[in-house]
Amino acid sequence: MTDISKPRRRGRGARKLARETAATPRLPTIRYGIKPVEVVSADQLETIHQASLKILREVGIDFRDEVAIEQWSAAGAEVRGERVHLDGEMIEDLVARAPERFELTGRGPNSRFEIGLDTVAFCPTHGPPNIRDLEGVRRFSTIDDLRTVNKIVQMSPGFHMASGFAAEPMDIAVPWRHLHINHSSLVETDLATFGMTTGEERTRDSIAMAEIVYGSDFLRDNVVMLGHISGNSPLVWDSTMLEGLRVMIEAGQGVLISPFVLGAANTPADVAATAAQLNAEALACIAYSQLVHPGAPVIYGQYSVAVSMKSGAPMSGMPEVSLLNGIVGQLARRYKVPWRTSAAQSSGKTFDAQSGYESATSYMAGVTANANLMLHAGGWDEAGMVTCLAKLVADSEQNLMMATYARGVSFDRFDEALEAVGRIGPGGHYLGDEFTLANFEDAFFSPKILDYEAFETWELQGLRDMWERSRQHAQAVLASYEPPPMDDAVREELDAFVERRQSELSPDVV
Amino acid sequence: MTDISKPRRRGRGARKLARETAATPRLPTIRYGIKPVEVVSADQLETIHQASLKILREVGIDFRDEVAIEQWSAAGAEVRGERVHLDGEMIEDLVARAPERFELTGRGPNSRFEIGLDTVAFCPTHGPPNIRDLEGVRRFSTIDDLRTVNKIVQMSPGFHMASGFAAEPMDIAVPWRHLHINHSSLVETDLATFGMTTGEERTRDSIAMAEIVYGSDFLRDNVVMLGHISGNSPLVWDSTMLEGLRVMIEAGQGVLISPFVLGAANTPADVAATAAQLNAEALACIAYSQLVHPGAPVIYGQYSVAVSMKSGAPMSGMPEVSLLNGIVGQLARRYKVPWRTSAAQSSGKTFDAQSGYESATSYMAGVTANANLMLHAGGWDEAGMVTCLAKLVADSEQNLMMATYARGVSFDRFDEALEAVGRIGPGGHYLGDEFTLANFEDAFFSPKILDYEAFETWELQGLRDMWERSRQHAQAVLASYEPPPMDDAVREELDAFVERRQSELSPDVV
Repeated sequence: MTDISKPRRRGRGARKLARETAATPRLPTIRYGIKPVEVVSADQLETIHQASLKILREVGIDFRDEVAIEQWSAAGAEVRGERVHLDGEMIEDLVARAPERFELTGRGPNSRFEIGLDTVAFCPTHGPPNIRDLEGVRRFSTIDDLRTVNKIVQMSPGFHMASGFAAEPMDIAVPWRHLHINHSSLVETDLATFGMTTGEERTRDSIAMAEIVYGSDFLRDNVVMLGHISGNSPLVWDSTMLEGLRVMIEAGQGVLISPFVLGAANTPADVAATAAQLNAEALACIAYSQLVHPGAPVIYGQYSVAVSMKSGAPMSGMPEVSLLNGIVGQLARRYKVPWRTSAAQSSGKTFDAQSGYESATSYMAGVTANANLMLHAGGWDEAGMVTCLAKLVADSEQNLMMATYARGVSFDRFDEALEAVGRIGPGGHYLGDEFTLANFEDAFFSPKILDYEAFETWELQGLRDMWERSRQHAQAVLASYEPPPMDDAVREELDAFVERRQSELSPDVV
Repeated sequence: MTDISKPRRRGRGARKLARETAATPRLPTIRYGIKPVEVVSADQLETIHQASLKILREVGIDFRDEVAIEQWSAAGAEVRGERVHLDGEMIEDLVARAPERFELTGRGPNSRFEIGLDTVAFCPTHGPPNIRDLEGVRRFSTIDDLRTVNKIVQMSPGFHMASGFAAEPMDIAVPWRHLHINHSSLVETDLATFGMTTGEERTRDSIAMAEIVYGSDFLRDNVVMLGHISGNSPLVWDSTMLEGLRVMIEAGQGVLISPFVLGAANTPADVAATAAQLNAEALACIAYSQLVHPGAPVIYGQYSVAVSMKSGAPMSGMPEVSLLNGIVGQLARRYKVPWRTSAAQSSGKTFDAQSGYESATSYMAGVTANANLMLHAGGWDEAGMVTCLAKLVADSEQNLMMATYARGVSFDRFDEALEAVGRIGPGGHYLGDEFTLANFEDAFFSPKILDYEAFETWELQGLRDMWERSRQHAQAVLASYEPPPMDDAVREELDAFVERRQSELSPDVV
C-alpha cells in the first residue's frame, strides 16, 4: 500500500506556507471497517456482468467522437460508424489496467487523501443552477454564491475535496463559466477539486489553471483534479465528455466516469437489467480511459435515480436506487476499480423532513455498499436543482458521522472497558466512572447541528428547527472564513489567465 | 419452514367476517434478499460473545425477583442474594431452545406474518407521553389520541402489527391505563399487538382481554400479542418485567427482551464493550425465558442510543448506534434468535430535517443489519417523548420502501428486460417501450407523501413541505377509517371486562 503519510514536494512557497498554517481539521483517509451489504449473490453478479459484456458485444455502444472511434478501431474493436462492438476479453484486459487506488491532494495542510476500494471520501454537490441562500430565498445562483459555497466547504471539516461546480454561476456567460468555476475552487479552497471538462478547450483551461496553482512538475506526479465524465445513457459517450477525459488523464489527473441513469426512462424498468446496462456503459468508458492511458486513475461512477412517472423528476433515496448502489459496489469490487455514488441526495423543496429522509437513505445506502467516493454529499436538494447553503453544513456533519460508522468498531479499549463493567456491576451507573470520563468524548459522536435538548429547553432557545440551526451555523462558518494562503504571484497569474482567456472567448458563443 | 399461507381456525363469527372484508393492503412476511453488512469480523464477534459469558459468570446479573431466583437456583445456577452467576454452557443450552422463527397474527385479513431470522416486520412507536397532533400542537396524549394513532395504524399499509402503547393515555389513571391501552389496539385495529406487561396482574388482564377477542383455544396455538420486557441496564432484570414475561409466555404469547442501553450512561464508553454488556443482559433473560418455558417465542431486543453529554438526552441515528445494530444482528444470527432494533428514531422537536436524517439512518442501519423487528417504525420523534401523527403516515410509507429494499433484486424479468436494451439500442429512450409500459409500476416504488414535483408546480400547489403533506395525508387516512368488524358479543364482553377491572382497581394506587 502507498504510504500517504509522507509529505511530498510541493514546489512553491505558497504551499509551504499553507502547510504551516493551522486550518480546518480535515477528514483523513477513511478506511472501511465494515463489510458491505450484498444485494445479489455471486452467481447473480456474474449474470449481470455477463449481460453487460453481451450488450457491449451484440448491441454495441456509441462513441460519438472521431478520435475515440479511431482508437477503438486501431485496438481491434469492431467499429460500425459511431458504434463500437467490444468483446469481453478486450474489456476485461483494459479494465484490469485501472489502478485499485490513487491519491488526491489539494494545496492545503492535510488535504491529501486516498481513494481506493477500502476507503470513502466525501465531496459536496455539483451541478445545481439554483441556490437556496442563507435567507431561505431560492433563486438562480451567481458566481458570488459559488464563492460562498466554496468558502463554507473550505471551513467545514466534513469534506475531503471541493466539487468545482458546486453551484452554477448563471450570471457568467457560458463560454467564460468554466474559468470562473475553476478559479473559485482553486482560490477559495485549498482542496482537491473537480475541474471543468466540457470539451477539449475548456479542459485544457482547467489543467492550465491547476498548473498555475500547483506547478507543472507537481501536477505530473499528483492528482489534484478530477474530471466528471457523464454518460449519455443509454449506451452513448459523446465527444464533449471524451475530449475532456483525454485531456484530464493525459495531464495525469483523474476521471470519474458516470453513466447517467434515469431508471425506466433511459434504462429498462428493471433493477437488475438497469445495472447490466449502466455497467456496460461504465465498463466501455473505463476500458477506453485505459486504452488512452494505461493506469490512468479512474473512478467507476454512476448517477442512478428512479424517475417519477407523475412528474418525470428524478427520485433519489428510493429503494431501487439503494439496490443499484449495492450492485455497483459489488461489480466495482469485482473489477477492482474504486466507485462513486451519490449521497445526501434529496428532493425537498425546502430543507424539510423529506430532505432528511432521502439524504440519510442515500448516505447509508452508499456507505453500507462501501462506496469509495460519496459525491453530492453536501448541499444537494430539490433533485439537484438547488444547492442549499444550510444543508451544506448539515451534510458536512453527516459526513463526519458517516465516516465514524464506516470505520467500524474499535477494540483498542475493549479490555479496559470491560474492567469498568466489573467495577460498576449490576444496577450501577457509568457517568462518574474513570473510564467514562477518559473516553466518552471519543467513544460517541457529538453533533453540533443536530439538536438533543429537551423540548422545554429547545422552546426557550427559540424553537429553531434544523433549517434554522443549519442556517445560523452556515452564517457562523462563513463569518469565520479565512482565505487559504496563496502566493501573490500565483494569484496574479491565475487572475491574468482568466482575463486573457475571457478576451479570447466570445461570450456570445454558447 | 412453516407454511404460513394456510388459513387457521379462528373460532368466532367476528373473525370469519373480518376475513371476508376487504381491508387495508398489508405487508406480507418480508424475506430478506440482501445479505447484511458486517461491522465486526467473526473473531471479533467471538470476542464479544466470550466477554458476555465472562460478565455473566464473573460479574453476574441481578434478577430482582424471588420466583426467578428460585428457578435459577433450582436449575443449578450460582445464586447469591439477587445476583445470579451463570456459566456459558448453561446459557448456550437454554438460548438454543428459543425458536428461530414464529408467527404472529391479528384477527384481520392478511394480518398473519412471520418473524424469523430472514424476515423483517414493522411496528409503530411505543411509549411517548406526548402527542404532536394534526394541528401541530404538542401536548400530553390522551386515550382519544391513542385511539387516533391506532386508527391510522389500522388504515396504513406499512405496519405489520400495532404497538399497544403507541401513545400513553395520560388522562387515564395509571392503574387503569393498561386496560384502555389493550382495549384500543384490540378494538381499533385487527392486528397483532403489544400487550401491557408491567407486573403480573396487568399482564393477566392483557391475556384475558386477548382471550375475549380471540378465544382461549386460538390463543393457545397462536401468538397474537407480544410483551415488551425492558431491562434495567446495567445487568438488572426486575420483578415487574419478569412477572410480565412469565405470564405472557405461559399463555403461549411472545416476548421482546430489550436491554435498555444509554451508551456511556449505563454502559461503558466503548461500542464493543457496550455490545458485550447488552448481549450479556439479553442472553441472561432469553435464557431465563427458556427456563420458564422451553421453546417460548422470544425476540432478542435492545434499545440502544448514545447519550448527549450536554443534555443527557438519548441520541438516536448516531454512528455508534448503527454499529451496535450491526453487532447485535451478527450476535442474534449466531444464537439463531430473531432480533429487534428501533427504526424511525429521531429527536426533532418538529417534524423537520433532523427527524428525517435520524429516522432514515436508523431505518437503513436496521435493514442493512437484517433486523427482524423494526420497532418504533412509525411516529417516533423528539427522542421518544412524542408520537407525531404526521410522521406516523410518513413512516408507514418509509416502511413500504424499506420492505422493497430488504427484499433485494428480482431476476424474474431480467432476460425480458435485456431484450428491451437490444430493442432500444444506444441513444434511444425507454418511456414508450412495451417492457417499460408493462413493468414500470412494479419496477420502481412510487411514493405518495414524498414529493417529486418541480419547484414551480410545488409552489403552485401551495408550498407544502413534508410536515404539511404528511399532516393532510394523515387527516385523509383518519377520515377513511372503518372499524374492523367485531362481533357485538365480543365487544360487550371486552367493555364489561374493562369496567369490572376498573371497579376492582383503585385509581389512587399507582
